[in-house]
Amino acid sequence: MHKKLFIPGPVEVSQDVLEKMAMPMIGHRSKEASELQRRISDNLRKLFYTKNEILLSTSSGTGLMEGAVRCGTLKRAAIFSVGAFGDRWYSIAESNNVPADKFEFPMGEAVDPKVVDDVLKTGKYDLITVTHNETSTGVMNPIEEIAQVVKKYPDVIFCVDTVSSAAGVKIEVDKLGIDICITSSQKCLALPPGLSICTFSEKARERAEKVKFRGTYLDLLALYKYIKKKDYQYPTTPSLSHMFALDYQLDKILNQEGLENRFKKHIEMAEIVRNWADKYFEVFADRNHLSNTLTTVKNTRGISVADLNKELGKRGFTISNGYGSLKEKTFRIAHMGDCTVNDVKELLQNINEILNLK
Amino acid sequence: MHKKLFIPGPVEVSQDVLEKMAMPMIGHRSKEASELQRRISDNLRKLFYTKNEILLSTSSGTGLMEGAVRCGTLKRAAIFSVGAFGDRWYSIAESNNVPADKFEFPMGEAVDPKVVDDVLKTGKYDLITVTHNETSTGVMNPIEEIAQVVKKYPDVIFCVDTVSSAAGVKIEVDKLGIDICITSSQKCLALPPGLSICTFSEKARERAEKVKFRGTYLDLLALYKYIKKKDYQYPTTPSLSHMFALDYQLDKILNQEGLENRFKKHIEMAEIVRNWADKYFEVFADRNHLSNTLTTVKNTRGISVADLNKELGKRGFTISNGYGSLKEKTFRIAHMGDCTVNDVKELLQNINEILNLK
Repeated sequence: MHKKLFIPGPVEVSQDVLEKMAMPMIGHRSKEASELQRRISDNLRKLFYTKNEILLSTSSGTGLMEGAVRCGTLKRAAIFSVGAFGDRWYSIAESNNVPADKFEFPMGEAVDPKVVDDVLKTGKYDLITVTHNETSTGVMNPIEEIAQVVKKYPDVIFCVDTVSSAAGVKIEVDKLGIDICITSSQKCLALPPGLSICTFSEKARERAEKVKFRGTYLDLLALYKYIKKKDYQYPTTPSLSHMFALDYQLDKILNQEGLENRFKKHIEMAEIVRNWADKYFEVFADRNHLSNTLTTVKNTRGISVADLNKELGKRGFTISNGYGSLKEKTFRIAHMGDCTVNDVKELLQNINEILNLK
Repeated sequence: MHKKLFIPGPVEVSQDVLEKMAMPMIGHRSKEASELQRRISDNLRKLFYTKNEILLSTSSGTGLMEGAVRCGTLKRAAIFSVGAFGDRWYSIAESNNVPADKFEFPMGEAVDPKVVDDVLKTGKYDLITVTHNETSTGVMNPIEEIAQVVKKYPDVIFCVDTVSSAAGVKIEVDKLGIDICITSSQKCLALPPGLSICTFSEKARERAEKVKFRGTYLDLLALYKYIKKKDYQYPTTPSLSHMFALDYQLDKILNQEGLENRFKKHIEMAEIVRNWADKYFEVFADRNHLSNTLTTVKNTRGISVADLNKELGKRGFTISNGYGSLKEKTFRIAHMGDCTVNDVKELLQNINEILNLK
């Protein structure tokens, strides 16, 4: 039996979108491929509220995070981490011999913009990374406030991981001054995993020009130059199947559902799950910075999360156990992508039945 | 109208395989995902005639080439190039600050194993790269003879790009002593682009342990360690759609078609195209090292290749123009993957009609 996914990626993909993954191949050096990829970039610019160029990469979000850190750092990177995906930025820098320092906040708390200011004030850093939505803890960082701080430092490249929020939460890239804003296909865009996406500012491009060893496959500048020269074609053979599906899905989101409606739906789903968690358990993260796409629930009842998931599986649902050290101490319900308010209600109803919650 | 692809990737994908790309998502941390990925690795070991571990990467072949050069070189890499894809190995090394030298052979000629011996004899190199099948020129390098040479140098990591040959041509990885043998989905495996594959020897693993900065996303050692620890699950979210299709296709190739039959079919298709080229044009590459998966045809009649392709398009076919500087001077017909002898005959018949060849 297929299990409906309420995990923070891959998420459930609608049947009509899945079918686009099965479209026959086209040449990746054809006019058709150029048109497809140009249309995708144009539509993604609307989704990110940006005039910047869009880069696609056949990789997971981690791939573009690596590209960003490698291509954007000349001096030193400041990594602000509130959990596992913040830590990933740091290990990426380390593994590439990119000088970096990590500034951590306690599990469940958000990045403090004042700390960002103090760090950048030192003048030691020329790139910062922030995880917008940390799926290990269910925290959504105050990106507007952080952006206000970063704007004071024009030499700093501002990289934001919006892997689990873009297309579910409004992220106005140009207004926020984000230089490299990264997402991937299998979260709020509700596509299968395998494609990642970023915005790429003029400032990021200028910085990359100065970095000598940017690698090949994840070199954002090489992607940028190639699409500019070859009418939105990519230097290596991209996942055309994902592009067919993304093209279709962007049209659906922008022209049928409407971006604002999609954002509103995500808030509604989040509120339903939070209210449920408040009633029967506790919300794990700082209440002022709760994620709109995923809720981490504190296991105050000491249930076996593994057993709950087993029972849910029999009914055709899956949720996530806590991440890493939070396993069994928390569990996570993702409410993102094409998931609906009714889907969420149905899931919670089933949890209530299994746990005999009234 | 859909155009049947006779280009060196993406190739035509069978309808039943395409449909597997549309399978519903599963959790990438599920038992189901482990089983899927373990089964794929087991079957790929048969295809590569190896006991070595198999690594999958959601990237193009270039991604794993970068991983190989970065993870495998401590001293200096010797890059043997017979065309565009050989040159790519070199630019990958350069862009990662990996010391490397390139040894080039004239367009249309193969790597001379004696030169390989002379180069390795210097003791300067601890990694070599060879392109098995060079799709820019239609040369297939004498991998057995090169392997005999490389075996004399036990400290050298032997990397082979079999992107456009594996699954169409027999490559016995263990017998040849290849440490890292790379392919990707969109060539002889006849899947959509978006997934790449490599074998990873114990020797390659030991070498990678000694290399400090291997990056993150394309770090072969990290992939290896993760699948070992987590029962064939991958560190980042992989393209599950490609894995569904690959799993299905491997079963078809190994258990329905049979590997030997597939290799034989590729030889038959190559012979048909070569005979046709001999009759009406000329084969571009050295006759002793012709590719079994792609034929580069010398445009001895001075036709407009672009016009030919336009006319072919109207009839539902596409071939490739020459690569780079060989554009219009040559054209390329790929005969790989699930393409059949009849498909090839049908294509040539249509070219004959368009060009009025008798």
